[in-house]
Amino acid sequence: MANAPVQRMSQLMAKTLRDDPADAEVLSHKLLVRAGYVRRTAAGIWSWLPLGKKVLANVERIVREEMDAIGAQEVLLPALLPREPYEATGRWDEYGAELFRLQDRKGGDYLLGPTHEEIFTLLVKDQASSYKDLPVILYQIQHKYRDEARPRAGILRGREFLMKDSYSFDTEDEGLAHSYALHREAYQKVFARLGLDYRICAATAGAMGGSKSEEFLAPAEAGEDTFADCPNCDFAANTEAVNFPLTPQEPTAPALEEIPTPDTPTIETLAAALGVPASATLKNLLVKVDGEIVAVGVPGDREVDLGKVEAHFAPATVELVTAEDFTGRPDLVRGYVGPQGRQEKLKYIADPRVAPGTAWITGANKDQTHAKNVVAGRDFEVDEYVDVVVVQEGDPCPACGTGLKLDRAIEIGHIFQLGRKYADALKLDVLGQHGKPVRVTMGSYGIGVSRAVAALAEQTADDKGLCWPAEVAPADVHVVAAGKALQTELALDVSEKLREAGLRVLVDDRAGVSPGVKFTDSELIGVPQILVAGRRAAEGVLELKDRRTGEREELTVDEAIARLTA
Amino acid sequence: MANAPVQRMSQLMAKTLRDDPADAEVLSHKLLVRAGYVRRTAAGIWSWLPLGKKVLANVERIVREEMDAIGAQEVLLPALLPREPYEATGRWDEYGAELFRLQDRKGGDYLLGPTHEEIFTLLVKDQASSYKDLPVILYQIQHKYRDEARPRAGILRGREFLMKDSYSFDTEDEGLAHSYALHREAYQKVFARLGLDYRICAATAGAMGGSKSEEFLAPAEAGEDTFADCPNCDFAANTEAVNFPLTPQEPTAPALEEIPTPDTPTIETLAAALGVPASATLKNLLVKVDGEIVAVGVPGDREVDLGKVEAHFAPATVELVTAEDFTGRPDLVRGYVGPQGRQEKLKYIADPRVAPGTAWITGANKDQTHAKNVVAGRDFEVDEYVDVVVVQEGDPCPACGTGLKLDRAIEIGHIFQLGRKYADALKLDVLGQHGKPVRVTMGSYGIGVSRAVAALAEQTADDKGLCWPAEVAPADVHVVAAGKALQTELALDVSEKLREAGLRVLVDDRAGVSPGVKFTDSELIGVPQILVAGRRAAEGVLELKDRRTGEREELTVDEAIARLTA
Repeated sequence: MANAPVQRMSQLMAKTLRDDPADAEVLSHKLLVRAGYVRRTAAGIWSWLPLGKKVLANVERIVREEMDAIGAQEVLLPALLPREPYEATGRWDEYGAELFRLQDRKGGDYLLGPTHEEIFTLLVKDQASSYKDLPVILYQIQHKYRDEARPRAGILRGREFLMKDSYSFDTEDEGLAHSYALHREAYQKVFARLGLDYRICAATAGAMGGSKSEEFLAPAEAGEDTFADCPNCDFAANTEAVNFPLTPQEPTAPALEEIPTPDTPTIETLAAALGVPASATLKNLLVKVDGEIVAVGVPGDREVDLGKVEAHFAPATVELVTAEDFTGRPDLVRGYVGPQGRQEKLKYIADPRVAPGTAWITGANKDQTHAKNVVAGRDFEVDEYVDVVVVQEGDPCPACGTGLKLDRAIEIGHIFQLGRKYADALKLDVLGQHGKPVRVTMGSYGIGVSRAVAALAEQTADDKGLCWPAEVAPADVHVVAAGKALQTELALDVSEKLREAGLRVLVDDRAGVSPGVKFTDSELIGVPQILVAGRRAAEGVLELKDRRTGEREELTVDEAIARLTA
Repeated sequence: MANAPVQRMSQLMAKTLRDDPADAEVLSHKLLVRAGYVRRTAAGIWSWLPLGKKVLANVERIVREEMDAIGAQEVLLPALLPREPYEATGRWDEYGAELFRLQDRKGGDYLLGPTHEEIFTLLVKDQASSYKDLPVILYQIQHKYRDEARPRAGILRGREFLMKDSYSFDTEDEGLAHSYALHREAYQKVFARLGLDYRICAATAGAMGGSKSEEFLAPAEAGEDTFADCPNCDFAANTEAVNFPLTPQEPTAPALEEIPTPDTPTIETLAAALGVPASATLKNLLVKVDGEIVAVGVPGDREVDLGKVEAHFAPATVELVTAEDFTGRPDLVRGYVGPQGRQEKLKYIADPRVAPGTAWITGANKDQTHAKNVVAGRDFEVDEYVDVVVVQEGDPCPACGTGLKLDRAIEIGHIFQLGRKYADALKLDVLGQHGKPVRVTMGSYGIGVSRAVAALAEQTADDKGLCWPAEVAPADVHVVAAGKALQTELALDVSEKLREAGLRVLVDDRAGVSPGVKFTDSELIGVPQILVAGRRAAEGVLELKDRRTGEREELTVDEAIARLTA
């Protein structure tokens, strides 16, 4: 790489702002705009100015190097994609309003790629014919498009954003596990080099399909994800992926007894009328899974996490029941449904907290009536146990039982073992070792490149402004000419020498801007080392300031160069 | 940059093909597909496989370095753009069917950027407030979108393609001229480093607007542009930009005379009836310029280049007249229109070949009648002289008079002095030196990055395949294991040593592939140096082959490394 020229702030297209932009809600948005790194072009659509582009390119380079190191091959696929492959996997419809769709001049349907599983699957179908051509990992660093309903939070959640997406192709499950492990390690290296604080969290696969999945989460106030973190052991998981263990108990409750409970159609009215805590009652939520009514049982004091229910039944659709669903169903007594003593079978799934042997107060399937001492496994059967409740702070850690903490975080990476979902839909086979076609198994892996810039800004900023780790900073050193011609001359001279020594240099040579404003700007911009040509410029003495610690030291030109290039 | 790992062909996602793809018309398309560099994803939409992506990245790097060297600042603007700025400049409509338009979930209108003048203008409007903030040159390397009517010619003309686009902003015309000159020099360096044969051609500004404009054309059979090239002097121009000099003559013809010419409504019938060459007649083409009828006079043997007529009248629209336009116009006698002796004034533009003093046979504005000895400037007035004819091979060079050659070429770069068109439309002013607002003047400059890859393939390929210049090749050396385990071991060993020495290495370690196929593939792929571990592998002797010249030499491992790293 040729040495980049010294970047003069007198010519730099990056106006700093004193005030936060009016529409900014999160720290990274405020600071990246104020420091002149990015500008909003439309809702959720951003322009990267010179300093921002440099940081983005640094993140990109680190990601590229670590992907290359695991033998992944870089390709570049289009962002404008034909409808057909997404039709074949069902995602043309499943994506709903989030997908940008358009037509070409001939009326052909196209989309802007939100992620590229289909196109990579077809590419490998075209390129690989034998098991000998696999395993292979392909990646690209490319813009993705999602029409977010509420694009906000600056570049943390944009509608056009830069991603590294990669895809692994193997013939065996063990191969997929290996490709997945390679990515997991590469991601750890990437985020460590970026200087990001992150946790690897168990995740649900969601709409992507597949089996194993983990998220790389960067804890930050501005994060849109909540994860459960154990303060005692190394357990961490997306709240949707926390699974309470099922612990059957010996039933100790007396026999089931029906009790009249007038005017208690809700948990709150019931608990109040009986003088029991809501946690003693069993809540039975009715949902429709692909049209069929299913009851979901959870303790009365817990909320059902519909995301978990959907993930469990995916790819079936899950809807809440409406008043119409009760017509023609006299067995479903609204507000008084219970899983026990029913003539008509009701599919019943329950949270592990409703373990066999536990006793509950619940609806008696009769108007104005409940039943108590209703014991799971004795008085009713559970078709399937699934953790479906919203996790709460203090819930026991599934690994060690300690009360969990809930923290906000930014999802910066996600790795999936997809399995054969896409290969099945698009018929991706290769000739196996024994001469027969073998269906390929896939993994899908993403890093939010532009989002990582925002996550870094969130985690590393202080009250003075941005504060970049060295490897991603837009420059190695920010030279400030604090004074008149003499200081400017010295600043430009030392900048050129630093450039010759291989450093990336930003120099504040603006005329008519006070030293105070320049200092404030240098702290806002956040280059790690700030070198000031000021009071003692005539003697050839500069002040070197560490942006993070604020430590200062006076040095001659030669000493400064030696120190910075060390 | 960290040393990239050795790329093994046994793992490379790049299947070579023996046969040309059925839909391929041009050489670069055939070879880039056959050698596994690119694959078609949809009409005019391409995927870059690993080897292709490497070449593309090399071109990108060279462009970036030369743009940085002229002090241009790299930014990255979105590809998905809001309608409003393009509405303000009129290009939302002017682009017609070539523009990809789409709506977001809220029904807002968006487009996929075909070029970014509007957005850059708004960016500078936001960032620059004073003449002190200028001049500035901003650039990006980013995907562009144009919905070509007939996407063909592989990546030479795609619907999604990679471009470097840059924009200069100055307060004075001299500043614009300087920014333009900087680009011109940078482009010369870029294309020289790429190893492209190119000519700089005068061009018309077309729909882009503005004044001065030049194209960088790479001569190639597959090119879609035709340019006129003087074999004697350094004149070269897009055929639309060739201007025949106007040379008035002393009129020598006798007085105008009307002659009956029954049944001669066309130049051909007229010339045949009178026994004169078509070049002795004057053809008067009627067009409508924003609805007003204008006559265009050219020698009868020449075709009118409507592109030139449009460029002359831009931004007015130019249409051919239809039968309806003659109704209610008895002065326009179809097939017998002439510029002379008219009662109703007709706006008349003429080609410089119809210079003052030249005599013609032309329509007499009466049915079945022509006039001869009709002398320009004596018998009729020309409102404006504009070169509007289609240039022909052998037309005199405007600079030296030598007969011009016509050649096909690929447009690889284009530089424009836009002037104030976009600044006017979007009101881009800065505070001038004297405290008053000054309207900014702009330049716009493009390099087709993906197209340059195809142009290079076209120009450098030979009958064996691709043949890359060193700086853009996907590897520095292609090591071929031509034999069994012994050869493969030596090939992998020397590959690793070459990598350690800083070279980019591709090694053909495929098992079960014959040496003959490997040699053919190495020539198709076109890495400049081919190092073969073959017959004398046991002695540690390799054969180094120059891909272009075919020269071969036997070398020991150490000699080969020394030679290749020299």
